[in-house]
Amino acid sequence: MKVIRSIDQLQRELLKFNKQTIGYVPTMGFFHEGHLSLMNTAREETDLVVASIFVNPLQFGPNEDYEQYPRDEERDLKLAKENGVDVLFMPDVGVMYPDKASITMKVVKRANVLCGRSRPGHFDGVVTVLTKLFNMIQPDKVYFGMKDAQQVAVVDGLITDLNFPIKLVGLPTIREDNGLAKSSRNVRLSKEEVFEAQSLYRALIRGQQLVVDGEKDPATIIQDVKQTIRHHTDGKIDYVELLSYPALEEITIINEQIILAIAVQFKHARLIDNLVFNKFGQIIERLR
Amino acid sequence: MKVIRSIDQLQRELLKFNKQTIGYVPTMGFFHEGHLSLMNTAREETDLVVASIFVNPLQFGPNEDYEQYPRDEERDLKLAKENGVDVLFMPDVGVMYPDKASITMKVVKRANVLCGRSRPGHFDGVVTVLTKLFNMIQPDKVYFGMKDAQQVAVVDGLITDLNFPIKLVGLPTIREDNGLAKSSRNVRLSKEEVFEAQSLYRALIRGQQLVVDGEKDPATIIQDVKQTIRHHTDGKIDYVELLSYPALEEITIINEQIILAIAVQFKHARLIDNLVFNKFGQIIERLR
Repeated sequence: MKVIRSIDQLQRELLKFNKQTIGYVPTMGFFHEGHLSLMNTAREETDLVVASIFVNPLQFGPNEDYEQYPRDEERDLKLAKENGVDVLFMPDVGVMYPDKASITMKVVKRANVLCGRSRPGHFDGVVTVLTKLFNMIQPDKVYFGMKDAQQVAVVDGLITDLNFPIKLVGLPTIREDNGLAKSSRNVRLSKEEVFEAQSLYRALIRGQQLVVDGEKDPATIIQDVKQTIRHHTDGKIDYVELLSYPALEEITIINEQIILAIAVQFKHARLIDNLVFNKFGQIIERLR
Repeated sequence: MKVIRSIDQLQRELLKFNKQTIGYVPTMGFFHEGHLSLMNTAREETDLVVASIFVNPLQFGPNEDYEQYPRDEERDLKLAKENGVDVLFMPDVGVMYPDKASITMKVVKRANVLCGRSRPGHFDGVVTVLTKLFNMIQPDKVYFGMKDAQQVAVVDGLITDLNFPIKLVGLPTIREDNGLAKSSRNVRLSKEEVFEAQSLYRALIRGQQLVVDGEKDPATIIQDVKQTIRHHTDGKIDYVELLSYPALEEITIINEQIILAIAVQFKHARLIDNLVFNKFGQIIERLR
């Protein structure tokens, strides 16, 4: 595995692999099984696997945890190598943003719902850094986890809108045995909260089951999910939303592919989770 | 020459030419010698020449001449073929913008001077359509005329900022024998105005000569240029500006590469012209 920190070196390296398909896994590092699953799938589906680790200051708000974002370069290097990565790109902030921007990008659809509502500018930072990374790497396929389903939806908009010749792949959320979605933030949960937190996934499955059983009214499902969460946890519900997917528009009747998504604030960690399913309630685990 | 109107067909066609260098000439059509010089240079310097004709509604203001913009498809096809174009891409508006945008782009540097000052949003539209076209065509080199020097500066910012792996080439302005810069709008000048308009280029050359002679003060040169134009024409000066190039920042002393640019409103046509030269007054005709 090549570890690369400059854009020039990256492009020289990629030129060597001309004509092969490139699979790209953009990350902020501190890998868990979710990241590794993206790498392994890219390894199976493409000739050259490029991953990047870049904690992108542009997508953190002024009161968010950019400085505190967990980093473990040594462990990440080892894991990337073991999971089939050929080229690991780890640029400094000065490499990615040498000057004040002359072009800014703004996400005007799909951003102002779910987590985006409480993180103004977050997705603007995401599409800006991805546009730069896509142009540097020119991948054939790019891999994201469906855990961050809104991010997948926004990137789908970016690729479609600006005609990037890239296939977007959204891979299934990786879960603990009890259903809890894997996340770096789970370590901040108390033992009791870990037990309670499994009810997030149970609540989603209950909501999905209602659709399987023929329920068409979003409000009824949202109400049921909220009750399940309230009944089984002391966490504070940030949102429970049911939207079309990937357009992320409000719907009044379930008649298309949708996302049921939740965010719950525990004492030291805010957890998110979601399910995407079709109008019959069949779960869509992998996007394309 | 292949004439192509859909994105799918464009990409199928370009795949055939894998591994060859692509030279790209983006235009709004209604070709004059300036456009043809871009095509011929691309022909000399790259293996596959792609040109596009697209009158981009996004870069026209509400009171500008989008509907009246001159079009002559038949003549353009003939000229493109005669001047070495391999692939001519002519998409409809619905092909380029099938949906309301989910991502918007804004030019925050280099846009609010010269012509950009009186055309708010113009360069936002330019960088948006070019980002789409660059992603569709993935050229090695892209060719613009230095007649539109501010556009070249903005595209330079776009390519650098968002890391497009594309070389930007700015080619010399093509002029009439008397120095008047070629433009589709010159046909709107009266015989008298054609005679007067040659003084725009003369005024620029005078300004440049002052720098050759050691003048370092922008205000002195601007004053001289304005006097020359006022003395020889009835046109109304829109601006005479002397800025760093391509940064397009105001300078207080001439100590770097600069642009001397003018815009003059005649009865039925607004003419623009410019010279780019180094601090010794040596003219930079071709950018890279």
